[in-house]
Amino acid sequence: MTDFAATKALFDLPEGVIYLDGNSLGPLPRDVPARIEAMLREEWGEKLITGWNKAGWMAQPMRLGDRIGKLIGAEPGHVTTGDTLSIKVYQALASGLEMRPERRVVLSDSGNFPSDLYMAEGLLRMMGRGHELRVVAPEEVEDHLTDEVAVLMLTEVDYRTGRRHDMKRLTAKAHAVGALAMWDLAHSAGAFPVDLKGCGADFAVGCTYKYLNAGPGGPAFIYVAPRHAGRAVPALSGWLGHEAPFAFDLGYRPGAGVDRMRVGTPPVIQMTALDVALDVWDIADIGDVRAKSVELTDQFIAGIEAACPGLELATPRDPALRGSQVSFRFADGYAAMQALIARGVIGDFRAPDIMRFGFTPLYIDEADVARAVDIIADVMNTAAWDRPEYRVRAAVT
Amino acid sequence: MTDFAATKALFDLPEGVIYLDGNSLGPLPRDVPARIEAMLREEWGEKLITGWNKAGWMAQPMRLGDRIGKLIGAEPGHVTTGDTLSIKVYQALASGLEMRPERRVVLSDSGNFPSDLYMAEGLLRMMGRGHELRVVAPEEVEDHLTDEVAVLMLTEVDYRTGRRHDMKRLTAKAHAVGALAMWDLAHSAGAFPVDLKGCGADFAVGCTYKYLNAGPGGPAFIYVAPRHAGRAVPALSGWLGHEAPFAFDLGYRPGAGVDRMRVGTPPVIQMTALDVALDVWDIADIGDVRAKSVELTDQFIAGIEAACPGLELATPRDPALRGSQVSFRFADGYAAMQALIARGVIGDFRAPDIMRFGFTPLYIDEADVARAVDIIADVMNTAAWDRPEYRVRAAVT
Repeated sequence: MTDFAATKALFDLPEGVIYLDGNSLGPLPRDVPARIEAMLREEWGEKLITGWNKAGWMAQPMRLGDRIGKLIGAEPGHVTTGDTLSIKVYQALASGLEMRPERRVVLSDSGNFPSDLYMAEGLLRMMGRGHELRVVAPEEVEDHLTDEVAVLMLTEVDYRTGRRHDMKRLTAKAHAVGALAMWDLAHSAGAFPVDLKGCGADFAVGCTYKYLNAGPGGPAFIYVAPRHAGRAVPALSGWLGHEAPFAFDLGYRPGAGVDRMRVGTPPVIQMTALDVALDVWDIADIGDVRAKSVELTDQFIAGIEAACPGLELATPRDPALRGSQVSFRFADGYAAMQALIARGVIGDFRAPDIMRFGFTPLYIDEADVARAVDIIADVMNTAAWDRPEYRVRAAVT
Repeated sequence: MTDFAATKALFDLPEGVIYLDGNSLGPLPRDVPARIEAMLREEWGEKLITGWNKAGWMAQPMRLGDRIGKLIGAEPGHVTTGDTLSIKVYQALASGLEMRPERRVVLSDSGNFPSDLYMAEGLLRMMGRGHELRVVAPEEVEDHLTDEVAVLMLTEVDYRTGRRHDMKRLTAKAHAVGALAMWDLAHSAGAFPVDLKGCGADFAVGCTYKYLNAGPGGPAFIYVAPRHAGRAVPALSGWLGHEAPFAFDLGYRPGAGVDRMRVGTPPVIQMTALDVALDVWDIADIGDVRAKSVELTDQFIAGIEAACPGLELATPRDPALRGSQVSFRFADGYAAMQALIARGVIGDFRAPDIMRFGFTPLYIDEADVARAVDIIADVMNTAAWDRPEYRVRAAVT
């Protein structure tokens, strides 16, 4: 059984803050500053250009891919890291479409993160082959899986409501109609066990700055199922995805397997932060994390519903149908969230009316949840949120 | 006049090393570790998710773009940073091709960095409209500028030989035939003054880990000429290039100007390293850097040619025709370079026979060049390079 007091001790959280926004940006793992300083001084500073070999920078994207792979049920050697999630979405979708050249529909849902839809839009326009991006309501996805669909492109957990798709069932249904299934695990990886292999997923992508705590702008990851890895066509055919990058040939030849999804020079400093952040998984079991997360989210829902009648639950009540966040609808949610942040309870707001709270047992415990409930009740019920200074809308929330 | 002793004091170079590979990876600016630690603890650690606004992370890519813009003659507000150079090549080329829909040729040369050619190859295949990537010898580019050419895509300085194209002349020639000109400034930015505006360049891209010293995997940059910025179609239409990213609309609307070339969440830790690395330009003048670089490279060429008859100069002798590196051909260049590195003179090797040495007055002075020449002469003329341990070819050199 995971010792959650030990995992909590690995994070540096500000005094007096209850951080319920790790689903947007995970907090600072305590060892990151020292390890990055060592990387800067002993690797970049001392080894200079030879760091690519001698400090293992070149091999790092695949090594870290495997560390993440263990959390998401990927076969070893089939996940790599780098770039941003939007870029990885583009790569995965482009590869999938090349495998279904006779089909013209990308099926997604309105609960997908907008950037995934935007990247698809850009890709389809660039391809100019008359593809359609068909965006339906989350609950209608299954009905729209027809033999027109080339790729089913979904984010497993809805970034606003926390509603979770049934990855196994939808992947099987996609395959049954001859489509490929591509999953965005932004709100899954590190939040609960994912079983890519067991589900038969074709592609998966995700980011590392949420439940994986790699810091702002941490590298993304991409998984290509072993059965596709040797024939997936890389749309973004950069030199580090080349079979022999340092041969400097004029023509591109894709590297072996998922290696071909590497593009340019990896961000070594961010990779180092990710590497350190993944150390918590040496002592945390993802199954334990999920079990505890269900307890915490149940506790939070019960507490808020009892104390704040004005907040309407937007997240499925059944734990099997949600990720590791809880969202409530409230018309003045923006101002209310500002007031909560001023009181040390950090969640976030998503237009038009969603107040989001993320939970991870790695650094949030029952006492934190109880205290958060008290503060939220106090703020909501005294209308402390209704002060003018909380109503000024910033560019980013 | 720039005080080069003062600029040299801003870098942390290992004792006993003469670093002539800043054209591949610039050395560590002395203030980077402390500034990154502050960013980690005070921004990520303390501000958490609010860092996007309160620590200025969201605005950083454009702010740093302007800092780079001053070195490359860009108009303020027309450079942004992020991703990798390969990604930025893809974006610029895709935008250019959309502006010349009736043309089918991308003209480049065999001196371009292979990843640029690979990215073009992938883009053209993805577009599936019968485009041709026409790769000619560097000296034949001008003859191949015809009215078939949609985009002329070149790297200003050849990564192997250091040969420099005439950006102004080729851009004018491209425009004369109705083509667009796109320049990769990987070996230009920070090495010598570039005048994008004066040359009339349409697009420019570059990396920051060479002469801009931002560290391994530092973010890339992209410039879009003001006359195109409002209509360039972003192929990689990620959420941070959206007109209103935090509206979370389901459909994409490009942001204003070069902002639309942003894609996903920026790598804030790497951005911080870049920010610190750019501080040297507060005390260094890029014109002075160029003048001194010409002196140093002249000194190096004269010294090596006098002392090492076995090395054949691969770089143009006329300073106007070269960047800030000097390359020599030597059949056993790989082994020789390993032997030099063992003696503390760090350059690098590019297949099949190029020994590269980069020079920047920011941290290399006449005494370093003289000492490097002595060591190279000693190694080459005593055949110290011809020992078995230097002949083992590593994956990355």
